[in-house]
Amino acid sequence: MEQFTPTQIDALSTLVSTDRFSTGQSNRELHTKDISPHRGRLPAGIIWPVSTEEVSAILGYTYGQGIPVTPWGAGTSTEGNPLPVEGGLVMDMTRMDRILAIRPQDLQADVQPGVFRKTLNANAGRSGLFFPPDPGADATIGGMIANNASGVQTIRYGATRDYVMRLTVVLPDGRVIPTGGKAHKSSSGYDLTRLFVGSEGTLGVVTEATLKLAGIPVAHLAATVVFNTLEAASQTVATLMGSGLSPAALELLTPELIGLMNREKGLGIAEKPSLFCEFHGVSEAALHETAALAEELCRDSGALDFQTGVKERERKDLWRARHEAWETIHRAFPGRETLIVDAAVPISSYPQMVVFSQQQLDAKKAVGFVFGHAGDGNLHVVMVGDPADDGEWASLEEINDSIVHRAVDLGGTCTGEHGIGIGKRRFMQLEHGAGYALMKQIKGLIDPRGLMNPGKMFL
Amino acid sequence: MEQFTPTQIDALSTLVSTDRFSTGQSNRELHTKDISPHRGRLPAGIIWPVSTEEVSAILGYTYGQGIPVTPWGAGTSTEGNPLPVEGGLVMDMTRMDRILAIRPQDLQADVQPGVFRKTLNANAGRSGLFFPPDPGADATIGGMIANNASGVQTIRYGATRDYVMRLTVVLPDGRVIPTGGKAHKSSSGYDLTRLFVGSEGTLGVVTEATLKLAGIPVAHLAATVVFNTLEAASQTVATLMGSGLSPAALELLTPELIGLMNREKGLGIAEKPSLFCEFHGVSEAALHETAALAEELCRDSGALDFQTGVKERERKDLWRARHEAWETIHRAFPGRETLIVDAAVPISSYPQMVVFSQQQLDAKKAVGFVFGHAGDGNLHVVMVGDPADDGEWASLEEINDSIVHRAVDLGGTCTGEHGIGIGKRRFMQLEHGAGYALMKQIKGLIDPRGLMNPGKMFL
Repeated sequence: MEQFTPTQIDALSTLVSTDRFSTGQSNRELHTKDISPHRGRLPAGIIWPVSTEEVSAILGYTYGQGIPVTPWGAGTSTEGNPLPVEGGLVMDMTRMDRILAIRPQDLQADVQPGVFRKTLNANAGRSGLFFPPDPGADATIGGMIANNASGVQTIRYGATRDYVMRLTVVLPDGRVIPTGGKAHKSSSGYDLTRLFVGSEGTLGVVTEATLKLAGIPVAHLAATVVFNTLEAASQTVATLMGSGLSPAALELLTPELIGLMNREKGLGIAEKPSLFCEFHGVSEAALHETAALAEELCRDSGALDFQTGVKERERKDLWRARHEAWETIHRAFPGRETLIVDAAVPISSYPQMVVFSQQQLDAKKAVGFVFGHAGDGNLHVVMVGDPADDGEWASLEEINDSIVHRAVDLGGTCTGEHGIGIGKRRFMQLEHGAGYALMKQIKGLIDPRGLMNPGKMFL
Repeated sequence: MEQFTPTQIDALSTLVSTDRFSTGQSNRELHTKDISPHRGRLPAGIIWPVSTEEVSAILGYTYGQGIPVTPWGAGTSTEGNPLPVEGGLVMDMTRMDRILAIRPQDLQADVQPGVFRKTLNANAGRSGLFFPPDPGADATIGGMIANNASGVQTIRYGATRDYVMRLTVVLPDGRVIPTGGKAHKSSSGYDLTRLFVGSEGTLGVVTEATLKLAGIPVAHLAATVVFNTLEAASQTVATLMGSGLSPAALELLTPELIGLMNREKGLGIAEKPSLFCEFHGVSEAALHETAALAEELCRDSGALDFQTGVKERERKDLWRARHEAWETIHRAFPGRETLIVDAAVPISSYPQMVVFSQQQLDAKKAVGFVFGHAGDGNLHVVMVGDPADDGEWASLEEINDSIVHRAVDLGGTCTGEHGIGIGKRRFMQLEHGAGYALMKQIKGLIDPRGLMNPGKMFL
């Protein structure tokens, strides 16, 4: 659906103020592309609601009309999750961007979905608090909820799902549903909150959320650990995770990626299989003790070097470089797109997955970089190619397929943090078996006309 | 349904070995009472499956016959959650009690639902690991999953919901569904796992689970903190929770309960409003630093005394006494039943809830003890009475009502950890509003004949 009827345009125009509904070409084109290689179909129009009531009125109308609706956040998704693949209406949530309350005593914040993660953290920081899930990109909270976003600090702090306590959701037909509550724990009824977290906008639109916050750690300590082989590096991950030292981040980097980061970012670090670690604690003294224990474990596991003398400035550079790994790869290959593997496996299987993935790249002579949130067993392989070159792209998809199949065989998942979106729908049956049919039933129950973010998650 | 037809008896008898299906009176009576004041109706029979296949065959049969089925674990529930209120078949899961695997490198265990919590911990302990959710009672893992059980260490370690990674569930019609996976994180599809956790057996029967485990902390430190007033004690809770010191337990006790524990257990501690705290750490040194910070915060908040010199033996006695608070109260009033308030609120509202609850007891001259998992905002009021004395019991229910209404007004819940069961169904509409209708729709989708654990959660 690339065009509304004049009646539909009139009707939608009455639901929001005039500057918040557009059928202009440029606005529509801006909403057909996220950072993935996927492309949406041109939507018929964009609407920017500012309240739950507006979202409810809009969905009440579109549902009756059979108009597909795709919610939009920051557009930082890597799997085409917010792209309007059937056109229709894009509901851009970025004007619902108010932080309604930060309640330090409760360690909670009430926010609208269009609040950006970094904005929330800047505000929460004034109370010594932060919202820990950190996907790198400055996503909106709504987008993070939709995809259950996570990132480098998930091993210690958990994913977005672990931080959402309460939601206001507008269902596809316009009904407004509250879920969850503000108490830290509850055993009351079905967990609707976590049904909506990670549902990628296919079950409704989140219009308000209560989030848990955490205290900003008093002390940080970063460490870089260098190994001779990828196996040794990845095997050390399981040792560290079982140690009770509770690292705040534990990232694996291959020499190839470090080489690229050295060239592009001037990092100047050894081009060896490496772990980037971070520890958080209540004091410097406690952290030094933690670091001493970590070093002992790493050296016992064959570490060549363990550096903790990383200064604040260097610590930030290191993590910025890690956060920007995707951008760095993207920039190093202008005019190419990236296909990102996001498989996750139990920690003990991580070493074989790392080795297997590197072998797949080598066997197909593909351009790709293996790294990941090792402490979570979450493996990224960022592969570079041209989607217009059918042969080359198909070869990258084959690598993705073989890695995902291996991950699922090991009890893992096709996506640790990016969501299913468009590109991973073909793995749903493989990964979930009979559970996939139940997911479809739930989708059918809540969105019987199939209008909410169509073309995502389900084939 | 208190009797099966001869045909039904024959059919059910063929589905399991002869010693695992019973229509004997004593077995049936044993399954009509948990530790709550509620009573089930006499079931027509009890069945003890030993495999997913058997559960599937049984449910496939009962579903076709319209036989209500109620799953049963350890019978330690406090809200009648496993009582067969419509009779029918009780499915006793305690013979599915195998620990299938403990995988230390993955920090995971694969278990059947009839494994007892303490058995799992004894086994996991050999690998230096434990399953943190601790409701006090030696519940089965299946029961803990059904009720999203938690307890004193939830503030640091989370509830059962946070530890369930993967399930095998048999739906009411016998379909077998896998949910989740063994990877530490996933953004793949709807979170079916957490839909089933806390569903109290109303959506199907869990026949296998993969659980996260945590490393047993190297060092423990217990502290008792004494205050002049309940307000000062409960206000200190929020301060401690916001401090980043991450206590492993933070319990509030009133002078009345301590007095009872002193008399019944010979604890010999001050009968003042008190906090019982526990801290876990990587070393004794780190813990002493933590304790020093905690003491400073507590004294600034008006603590009269802060004792950390609690020895291992005393620490265990203290926590045993706290764990057995309910049994102690029960035993002190022979022949009476207890009605347990389980409301939870955001931490900042905890002080007013504590004071309000004590006032309610005083105003109605009810026998009751206020305590709770203060760090979670989870308040227990254990009230003592005789359900046969309509006037007295109604008065206790009124107290429960007024506390729950206040909790919900404050954004909280009627049940932090016990589940809805029978006694809290009347609060579902109040607490969940339009979300309650969606829960009913989901129940209708998965159990259209309403046969799974009928009479629970929904009115």
